[in-house]
Amino acid sequence: MHANFTPGPSQLYFTVHDHIRSAMRSSIGSLSHRSKEFEKIFRIAADGLRELLQIPNTHHVFFVGSATEIWERSIQNLVEHQSFHFVNGAFSKRYFEIARQLGKHAEKIEVMAGHGFESNVSIPRGTELIAVTHNETSTGVSLPLEWIYALKDKCPSALLIIDAVSSLPYPAFDFNKVDSVFFSVQKGFGLPAGLGVWIAHERCLAKAYALSERGISIGSYHCLPSLFEHAKKNQTPETPNVLGLYLLGQVIQDLLRRGLGIIRKETEYKAAILYNALNHHKVISPFVKNEKFQSKTVVVADCGPATSLIHEKLRIIGLIPGDGYGEFKNSQLRFANFPTHSKEQVELLVDTLSAMDNITA
Amino acid sequence: MHANFTPGPSQLYFTVHDHIRSAMRSSIGSLSHRSKEFEKIFRIAADGLRELLQIPNTHHVFFVGSATEIWERSIQNLVEHQSFHFVNGAFSKRYFEIARQLGKHAEKIEVMAGHGFESNVSIPRGTELIAVTHNETSTGVSLPLEWIYALKDKCPSALLIIDAVSSLPYPAFDFNKVDSVFFSVQKGFGLPAGLGVWIAHERCLAKAYALSERGISIGSYHCLPSLFEHAKKNQTPETPNVLGLYLLGQVIQDLLRRGLGIIRKETEYKAAILYNALNHHKVISPFVKNEKFQSKTVVVADCGPATSLIHEKLRIIGLIPGDGYGEFKNSQLRFANFPTHSKEQVELLVDTLSAMDNITA
Repeated sequence: MHANFTPGPSQLYFTVHDHIRSAMRSSIGSLSHRSKEFEKIFRIAADGLRELLQIPNTHHVFFVGSATEIWERSIQNLVEHQSFHFVNGAFSKRYFEIARQLGKHAEKIEVMAGHGFESNVSIPRGTELIAVTHNETSTGVSLPLEWIYALKDKCPSALLIIDAVSSLPYPAFDFNKVDSVFFSVQKGFGLPAGLGVWIAHERCLAKAYALSERGISIGSYHCLPSLFEHAKKNQTPETPNVLGLYLLGQVIQDLLRRGLGIIRKETEYKAAILYNALNHHKVISPFVKNEKFQSKTVVVADCGPATSLIHEKLRIIGLIPGDGYGEFKNSQLRFANFPTHSKEQVELLVDTLSAMDNITA
Repeated sequence: MHANFTPGPSQLYFTVHDHIRSAMRSSIGSLSHRSKEFEKIFRIAADGLRELLQIPNTHHVFFVGSATEIWERSIQNLVEHQSFHFVNGAFSKRYFEIARQLGKHAEKIEVMAGHGFESNVSIPRGTELIAVTHNETSTGVSLPLEWIYALKDKCPSALLIIDAVSSLPYPAFDFNKVDSVFFSVQKGFGLPAGLGVWIAHERCLAKAYALSERGISIGSYHCLPSLFEHAKKNQTPETPNVLGLYLLGQVIQDLLRRGLGIIRKETEYKAAILYNALNHHKVISPFVKNEKFQSKTVVVADCGPATSLIHEKLRIIGLIPGDGYGEFKNSQLRFANFPTHSKEQVELLVDTLSAMDNITA
């Protein structure tokens, strides 16, 4: 049994190969993005996602190139002067840096890698956008949903945006309590990279229109008003990654058939046995110590000096771990736990790790 | 024999299906964009394109989401105040409008659809970027290369950028005479949409650095300096459309094996027989009257009141024409003549059109 546990790009969802074959048979690869057939592809992806994640009609669904693009577009469209960022790893930090690069007054609260945030944080006055990374892919820290929702009460005038790149479709967001959520398709949805999905409340659109009316540049083809005007017609402003959008729609249908309730239970089971193995291991331990911040979808393991040996032993039997991120490259391994990873794959991983209980570098 | 002549997204290059199968076998769909394997994919595409189009080392090759994105990024990175646009159709106009939307002082010279430009145009003082659409996909007007090169002499301080979306790989640009060229992969290269290719001289990079140093926002992850820093390592700033980049590299290798000299000759032969048929037709005629502006890669035909009947008759036997663009939807048909369109396919199209010599609406 072979399994790729790198947290992104992830192992493809197991139906993707079949969908690619169907796409080729139906000439999706050369379909005009102004055709009725494309509008159907757009609708299947957007409406399917709405059903899967229970997105209310107050929120729009837009498709762009990557989650990285949404970092930039969200700052451009939702911030005139000031954003506030919760930074606890490489990706939340990059979002903060992009805000600075775009000339905004971005502030942050930063904690050490592997940690979450206290509940008594205060949001600076004048904050227009609160940016939270639900799941730090670099460190395996996940922030509790109730903690996230409470931020909105601390600063009701600000928009609350959630980077859910490596957690969706697992978290059951209450969209009435958040203004925007985004992700990219190559993580939890198990698709080839090249597409970012941006869910945004009417309030986000209103903010973008307001900035634009005050003469502030919000970009061009991918500003929220342009995305909105096209999405109304089930279209995109530019010629998009049509094949990627088709595959997203098809995998969403697969997830709907399987049922997100079941997928969530399986995610929790797989995470539980993996953390349990790490907790009882003599050499390996979870990097995130505080259970309430332990990510269910990206499990990060401190492996110490034995890291490269463990990596090699896993790789040989076809269980590919992700490297530790950045400074942790030589002391950690990361394991994605996405819908595509079967219980059997994770059980084999757990057994294999447990059998390395006396490994030394 | 089935053939799709819509000018974009185009019929796939005939090898694409096989390359997608290979990609699936080699797990390209879940490849990390920070792996050595990805760097090789990047190099095969970038170096292959360099060899195919004879791009000198003075120019860099970057990959982004779409040509539409390059419209925006080029204005952001290459214009502080003022750009100048040659507008003769819907796409050159959109480029101009994006410059305005980004708050630049954009000026234009505009001629009627189906027309090119005189050689005695003058470029306004203070122009920083001259934007030329080599091949107007909406009207089938192609601008002669010598005319384009001469623009640089009229205003040596400005950068000259060429939108070659629906002409490459046909034109043999002399890159010593242009600062930037860009295209998207779903036209002449016959690939699934979702990738834009931006070729830019060192001078473009220097301009972007200069703007940035003066505190002008040039964007974030996809600004030229960021694209450059990553391209040096054969990487992209974001997780890109890896599958699309792989397919581009493979099709470029196919084109190299076939030889661009042969492809150019075939393009000219196919264009010649198609224009010849239109010139001698009793009902259909070329929309572009002046031969020196007639595009070799997108042939636009005035079909008058018989347009929808001709469309239907072609469609029934599997020869799919492109609709006329915008206001010409009911009076024109467009035919792409890309490397993927075989001589046999175009010959069949010519014979079929010629046999409709007495068609009436």
